[in-house]
Amino acid sequence: MLDQIADIGRDAQRGGYSRHAYTKPEVELRHWFAEQAERRGLAVETDRNGNLWAWWGEPGANALVTGSHLDSVPGGGAFDGPLGVTSSLQAVDLLQAKGFTPGRPFAVAVFAEEEGGRFGVACLGSRLLSGAIDAAKALSLKDPDGVTLAEAMKAAGHDPERVGRDDEALGRIGQFVELHVEQGRGLTVPVGVASSILAHGRWRFTFAGEGNHAGATLIEDRRDPMVPAAQLVIAARRAARDGGRATVGRIVPNPGGTNVIASTVDVWLDARDSDDARTRAMVAEISEAARQAAAEEGCEVRIAEESYGDTVHFDPRLRDDIANALGGVPALPTGAGHDAGILAAHVPTAMLFVRNPTGVSHAPEEFAEQADVDEGVRALAATIEHLGS
Amino acid sequence: MLDQIADIGRDAQRGGYSRHAYTKPEVELRHWFAEQAERRGLAVETDRNGNLWAWWGEPGANALVTGSHLDSVPGGGAFDGPLGVTSSLQAVDLLQAKGFTPGRPFAVAVFAEEEGGRFGVACLGSRLLSGAIDAAKALSLKDPDGVTLAEAMKAAGHDPERVGRDDEALGRIGQFVELHVEQGRGLTVPVGVASSILAHGRWRFTFAGEGNHAGATLIEDRRDPMVPAAQLVIAARRAARDGGRATVGRIVPNPGGTNVIASTVDVWLDARDSDDARTRAMVAEISEAARQAAAEEGCEVRIAEESYGDTVHFDPRLRDDIANALGGVPALPTGAGHDAGILAAHVPTAMLFVRNPTGVSHAPEEFAEQADVDEGVRALAATIEHLGS
Repeated sequence: MLDQIADIGRDAQRGGYSRHAYTKPEVELRHWFAEQAERRGLAVETDRNGNLWAWWGEPGANALVTGSHLDSVPGGGAFDGPLGVTSSLQAVDLLQAKGFTPGRPFAVAVFAEEEGGRFGVACLGSRLLSGAIDAAKALSLKDPDGVTLAEAMKAAGHDPERVGRDDEALGRIGQFVELHVEQGRGLTVPVGVASSILAHGRWRFTFAGEGNHAGATLIEDRRDPMVPAAQLVIAARRAARDGGRATVGRIVPNPGGTNVIASTVDVWLDARDSDDARTRAMVAEISEAARQAAAEEGCEVRIAEESYGDTVHFDPRLRDDIANALGGVPALPTGAGHDAGILAAHVPTAMLFVRNPTGVSHAPEEFAEQADVDEGVRALAATIEHLGS
Repeated sequence: MLDQIADIGRDAQRGGYSRHAYTKPEVELRHWFAEQAERRGLAVETDRNGNLWAWWGEPGANALVTGSHLDSVPGGGAFDGPLGVTSSLQAVDLLQAKGFTPGRPFAVAVFAEEEGGRFGVACLGSRLLSGAIDAAKALSLKDPDGVTLAEAMKAAGHDPERVGRDDEALGRIGQFVELHVEQGRGLTVPVGVASSILAHGRWRFTFAGEGNHAGATLIEDRRDPMVPAAQLVIAARRAARDGGRATVGRIVPNPGGTNVIASTVDVWLDARDSDDARTRAMVAEISEAARQAAAEEGCEVRIAEESYGDTVHFDPRLRDDIANALGGVPALPTGAGHDAGILAAHVPTAMLFVRNPTGVSHAPEEFAEQADVDEGVRALAATIEHLGS
């Protein structure tokens, strides 16, 4: 079923897919989803925060909800997000074929901007829905071209004035189960369930120095923000110990000319560890190194926390119930964030993982075997039947 | 006169100006120049390599040529390039007002893509004109959006098939004098002449690792090209000693997502020193550090020399002749490259510098006092009168 959307949002420059929230390919994916859901007799609605809901039967309280997201990181793989959506629709196919009808409200959800690939805050749709981010703050987030979320939503036909915590939509969810491709190499059988998600945050370091000529400026006269920015990258690698993870994947010097000493450099740090204290300590160590490196170069540094979420422990009862219903599949932690992690603060939430043979994710090489994908669909159908009867 | 073009090509994101070769603002500047030249009775022609020539009287051999460039670095200042063009036109005004007519062919030239701000090779117009770069190689250079020079020239109405060494246009130049804002803090009087330009090259380092998920990938499983890229920045700073200059102002991770380990990182090194041997040794030291850092991270690195020019010593006779004609102004070296440096390999060439009070260049803060600018115009007019009678 992923073949149906294989041509949407390909990124010719980076490889893979760039399907960012409210851009043309992502809007096209929304239309594709709505059409597929309607073909199966599901009624599609868009909530106040741009998330899609496809209801099998009447919407209502204590609903069983599955689904994932359709947006991608820049140059991402085909599976992260869409697999959970296509598996949900295919699970509905299996259940409809065998004559199953849910005994409680049931929906397939598609959450907006899960990757934060456009506006920088991951799980934006589920954060807004659950009030985990302030609406005004979210609406003023800007994409790399300076377009705000409010402007982007408006351009895509949504009303930014309605954005914000949506107790009605949130209150209907009784349980949420998200299927996702596994993103490490932690799963050695086709399907497993999630135990926890690492604590995870994003910090933006803005180093400011003095833009100048790369040839005419003596080294001793320089205040070059690229130098402390590079030292931050080294410090992040050094600080990520004993299972901690610190990554710089995005760095933007301004103005960015080859023969120009940058005036500012923005560096984004993605940091995760097993708990809050360890994550905070790692980021504090990196921040201190950044401040010291900036001072040594006569530069300033501003550090802004763009998002943060503590460790998520998925509901143990729901996790064990599903694992048992699937014949005793293994439970494993993950370093990747998910909408399920955001919703877990409000409702019992679980995740199904599908094996990833290479562990590669957020890259064009992301992969899952067809047999494992099929097994994931069957497991999700069985879970829906088990929980939704 | 710079006020006339103060609104063309402003860069709202970076500040300053982004006037790149064959883009809309640069084409607008070409039209502005042609109109200004024609108002003064100069006949404008565009040569095979996209350089403009405004002839006062008949074109011909042993011409005295002045001028500079109108393109900018990304987010550059108002003076680097345009000052040499407006000063040439204003010098013509002064000379016409006093009834002077050149006794030899005389032209004001505007060279294309002097900064290499779009296609990465500095002084592209004068390099092509003089055969210092292969035409086929130049035409296949790409801008950051993947547009080739051939495509960009075609789109702007030029014939890429005619691009290449132009002995006719080059052979007409008897002497070339370029006026430019000084770019360090080396000039303490309003006007000076250039003695030499540092040896200067640009190298592109492409680090290749494995794109992956920033949360799900253990540190020990990573091959993250950002780590050796950062070490290159540190190594460049360390290697620039005793007057050598090494700068990284441009770095592009691919795909460039916050929560993605990059698969590749491109880093551009700008390196300059007083002579060839010192420059080569500095770049070799940086390259070795880059290779070692890449190997330690399990990454590959490709190193490509994008441009290189040995130290330029301006014609001492012409330099002294002009300095004396101007009442004994000082001669000083510069770390910045110029079309005059390229042409110096073929014809006697000189440069006039106008004082830069802060030494800032290639940045919006680039500045020259109006009194110094006026002094520069008078000095250029005197030089034209002295050489062109």
